[in-house]
Amino acid sequence: MPFEARFYIYWSQTDAAGIVHFSEFFTLVEHAEEEFYRSRGLLDVHSLMPRVEAHAVFKSPLKRGDVARVVLRPLELREKAVKFGFEIFNETTGLLSASGYIVAVCVENEGGRLRSARCPQELIEAWMSVE
Amino acid sequence: MPFEARFYIYWSQTDAAGIVHFSEFFTLVEHAEEEFYRSRGLLDVHSLMPRVEAHAVFKSPLKRGDVARVVLRPLELREKAVKFGFEIFNETTGLLSASGYIVAVCVENEGGRLRSARCPQELIEAWMSVE
Amino acid sequence: MPFEARFYIYWSQTDAAGIVHFSEFFTLVEHAEEEFYRSRGLLDVHSLMPRVEAHAVFKSPLKRGDVARVVLRPLELREKAVKFGFEIFNETTGLLSASGYIVAVCVENEGGRLRSARCPQELIEAWMSVE
Amino acid sequence: MPFEARFYIYWSQTDAAGIVHFSEFFTLVEHAEEEFYRSRGLLDVHSLMPRVEAHAVFKSPLKRGDVARVVLRPLELREKAVKFGFEIFNETTGLLSASGYIVAVCVENEGGRLRSARCPQELIEAWMSVE
Repeated sequence: MPFEARFYIYWSQTDAAGIVHFSEFFTLVEHAEEEFYRSRGLLDVHSLMPRVEAHAVFKSPLKRGDVARVVLRPLELREKAVKFGFEIFNETTGLLSASGYIVAVCVENEGGRLRSARCPQELIEAWMSVE
Repeated sequence: MPFEARFYIYWSQTDAAGIVHFSEFFTLVEHAEEEFYRSRGLLDVHSLMPRVEAHAVFKSPLKRGDVARVVLRPLELREKAVKFGFEIFNETTGLLSASGYIVAVCVENEGGRLRSARCPQELIEAWMSVE
Repeated sequence: MPFEARFYIYWSQTDAAGIVHFSEFFTLVEHAEEEFYRSRGLLDVHSLMPRVEAHAVFKSPLKRGDVARVVLRPLELREKAVKFGFEIFNETTGLLSASGYIVAVCVENEGGRLRSARCPQELIEAWMSVE
Repeated sequence: MPFEARFYIYWSQTDAAGIVHFSEFFTLVEHAEEEFYRSRGLLDVHSLMPRVEAHAVFKSPLKRGDVARVVLRPLELREKAVKFGFEIFNETTGLLSASGYIVAVCVENEGGRLRSARCPQELIEAWMSVE
């Protein structure tokens, strides 16, 4: 069963078209990802997971006051990288709002320099548990 | 009893100092305000309440993963304007993080032009109920 | 010759890792797109071009004070949609920072409802001129 | 003579009212502040200047495509703090858009902990030069 998180859409996320700005969809997905890690006691891992790829297809708008349900699923769990898919449903309209994926890599911080590293086993297991 | 809303702090709200950017405090206050109006069935009123003044004093930082408790209280309820105070507590550290106030005016949209207007009675009553 | 725009990176664009947040790269690309349309007297067209797809690969970070050079090129000009590619170079480090593409569709606003529409001829010509 | 910087307003800065969101005015002021420090070779100082107070009065809106002229003036230069005033003019409409002030303190980073510190002499002199 995939991970799900729900968010109300706020005024500050909208743009002059009256809908959530496309860049904010990626932020919304990251908020869901942080909720997922938090729910597993792994929030700090997220600080060492820079994104290397992001993709989204936008299907229907989100407006202020809508409820967005963000669904996350692992797509590829590699030694040093995680690729997960997302779907954002607009629960207020019942429509799929966006879908896509994110690829993040695991790094270590060595005196200020980031170095590619193995992803923590708990992270991999957390993602496997929501397959 | 004042209105309160709690929010987790997300990565996207932080800046290179590792703490929530000062402009994001105002956004956080607005999110709490929207939660307040939503809880009273008044969310749409917020779309016609441009801000005319904002003030904040920043006391201690919010970091990613911290829980922010935002407390709202009416300070002045006028015919065409609402002034409310806010306090943001960092529940993770137990410290006051910021306090301040917002002044918003009520407007009507007349064919694309905004005109000062009386605030809806329900709005005034909602604020009076959390005094 | 492709269109290019340069931007200083500001503190507000960074996150707790000390680098520009990945969602901000999409905003940066849109700023360059707006500069492009402005330079052709077509800025208003951008208000009626919702994004339907976005993709980015992130190669190296941008930090506050860095200069980002955003390069835009048309990839596909259809009757009702524009797909353009972008590259973001970090001129301070000399490295490619990100690349990807955006697909936007042209719409008309019919009494508040958006309807798919032909892209204005000037828009197509503007993009053809930077091929 | 005060310091001035001009900025085009982008789509991403607007909200569903079609105007720049009030929290973005503070970001705009910070961008001008960074331009000021950059022009004096002092950009890095800004990383160690957390804000302790912010105030703004909003007078007239900024829309996408408008040119904002941000004017900065020192109001109080103390040993460990700088208070500066700002005015934002909408050059497209000719109207004052907002005014207010920011108070920032100078800090040192001692192994991850921030400690109040004397502001660098160059910073004080830079502000004195635009009085």
